[in-house]
Amino acid sequence: MMESWTKASSQNVDNPVAEKPSAVPFAVTILGSGSASPALDRHQTAQLVTYCGDHFLIDCGEGTQYRLIEQRARPSRLKYIFISHLHGDHYFGLMPLLSSLNMGGRTEELYLFGPHGLDEIITTTFRMSNGQFFFPLHFQAIDADKPALLLDLPALTVESIPLDHGIGCTGFLFREKQHKPKLLRDRLPDNVPVGVLKALKEGQNVLDETGHVLYAAADYTTPGPKPRSYAYCSDTRYNERIIEQIQGVDLLYHEATFRDDNGQRASEVHHCTARQAAQLARKAGVGQLLIGHFSSRYKTFDEFRSEAQDEFPLTELATEGQSFKV
Amino acid sequence: MMESWTKASSQNVDNPVAEKPSAVPFAVTILGSGSASPALDRHQTAQLVTYCGDHFLIDCGEGTQYRLIEQRARPSRLKYIFISHLHGDHYFGLMPLLSSLNMGGRTEELYLFGPHGLDEIITTTFRMSNGQFFFPLHFQAIDADKPALLLDLPALTVESIPLDHGIGCTGFLFREKQHKPKLLRDRLPDNVPVGVLKALKEGQNVLDETGHVLYAAADYTTPGPKPRSYAYCSDTRYNERIIEQIQGVDLLYHEATFRDDNGQRASEVHHCTARQAAQLARKAGVGQLLIGHFSSRYKTFDEFRSEAQDEFPLTELATEGQSFKV
Repeated sequence: MMESWTKASSQNVDNPVAEKPSAVPFAVTILGSGSASPALDRHQTAQLVTYCGDHFLIDCGEGTQYRLIEQRARPSRLKYIFISHLHGDHYFGLMPLLSSLNMGGRTEELYLFGPHGLDEIITTTFRMSNGQFFFPLHFQAIDADKPALLLDLPALTVESIPLDHGIGCTGFLFREKQHKPKLLRDRLPDNVPVGVLKALKEGQNVLDETGHVLYAAADYTTPGPKPRSYAYCSDTRYNERIIEQIQGVDLLYHEATFRDDNGQRASEVHHCTARQAAQLARKAGVGQLLIGHFSSRYKTFDEFRSEAQDEFPLTELATEGQSFKV
Repeated sequence: MMESWTKASSQNVDNPVAEKPSAVPFAVTILGSGSASPALDRHQTAQLVTYCGDHFLIDCGEGTQYRLIEQRARPSRLKYIFISHLHGDHYFGLMPLLSSLNMGGRTEELYLFGPHGLDEIITTTFRMSNGQFFFPLHFQAIDADKPALLLDLPALTVESIPLDHGIGCTGFLFREKQHKPKLLRDRLPDNVPVGVLKALKEGQNVLDETGHVLYAAADYTTPGPKPRSYAYCSDTRYNERIIEQIQGVDLLYHEATFRDDNGQRASEVHHCTARQAAQLARKAGVGQLLIGHFSSRYKTFDEFRSEAQDEFPLTELATEGQSFKV
């Protein structure tokens, strides 16, 4: 079963040694898993991805800044924000969040990725209040027609995933880079030169002057852990075109606005059922599936899980306040 | 003391006969009384004014639609929305609210009053989502340099109150019109013609053909109840220029962002202290004072009340979820 932990213990995300000393922490915290109609029992879409101390926000429904505070994830720690599309339930919390960061005295750069036009909404809103940003806000518009590399960090990349929602809409694929091999020090003789160690750590063989192998990387290293990956698939109609891109990810979040009883409606309004999300998870061979964006017409959610688990057993509900390890 | 009632009984506002059979209900419900910095223990500014079944919203901080739902005041019942100024904590909940009304199938007209530029923010935001309004949204821009009549309903008017906040900012004055006289039926003989009754109800004397008074309005009627009034003074520096306009109102809401300990800062950032709000209330001879918009630096609020009551005893805190009769 998927590992998850609740609010009280999710603080471990910030502590690299608390849960799994050998791995860089990589987790997703659900801030909102409701859909567009306002409801008192769940919030609009937002997720916090934490990777090795960096905080990434995905989508930002109304009130997201309060959800972050409730999770004791200081909004000021955000460095990257990704907005999937310009339906309000996915971004109406962004202006309030930016405004609070600005008032709070932020000076650090913030990187914002979102659909064309989001920049105009932000600048129009700030202009009308005679406001100005006191921190550099870098905006990168996303083309929703083909996958693109959005962010290339030393240990992680983020790509866009084109979705089918009747409006420019993308998901986001967080992919850890290949870890470097681990040196098997006990197999190495003493006093090996530092240069040799460095080369082996890069997975390179070390040769003598005549070209013969002195130290074969395969003999003195073991491969690093398998890179992990998280795919966030925001609002979309059932769309098999994403399968190739998300093939084999460790954790897939996929929207599941409806249940089987509204299959026809799901397609009409460019959304999915829980079963469809699970079919995609199975066809893409992912490790685990998280479903959310539940329509407010439903008052209980276990049926979402059971319908999805018919197709893909390793399915969990994107329960607000819970964190999921990637 | 000021009459107030809590969430459970505030439903009486919708029932003209529950509290005071002879009077048209006129009340203010506090939806948010915090200031700009986000805090988990109070919300950003919004108030619901109810008058004789009509619902008026004043300001609309982030999350206001949820505050309305919590108060069981259906957002769809709103007919008039007033935005005091374009600082986000007073209107960032507006787009989400309009969006929800639109999705909810509203077709009735909605009247929106606010600063110049608010219309451009709304149209830009809707344009970027390929959205369209399915109901008529009438926008009237408010000039913040002089008082103006914004709304003239059969029994009530709403005027703007220019404030001093470093950005175009107005308050709103809700003023009941003069009630018609009440007929004293037991003083009238039987079988008085309907035309006579109608004239008396309008306060007119009824004459015979020669011009002599047959029925003097003063003999057969008693004056209607005194018209009530509510003044909402949003963010502002201490400003005695408003005194003339709000003179003698029954209920004044005035911001009180700071206490005495931050008097200098209050002025610098175009805000007031609780004491200053109360001084204005005293000088304007109002009936009762409500204070709110408390800075998040304060964790307790009784001191706001006591500092204000030094100047004006009939002061209450604008406690969220409470309704106050005008």
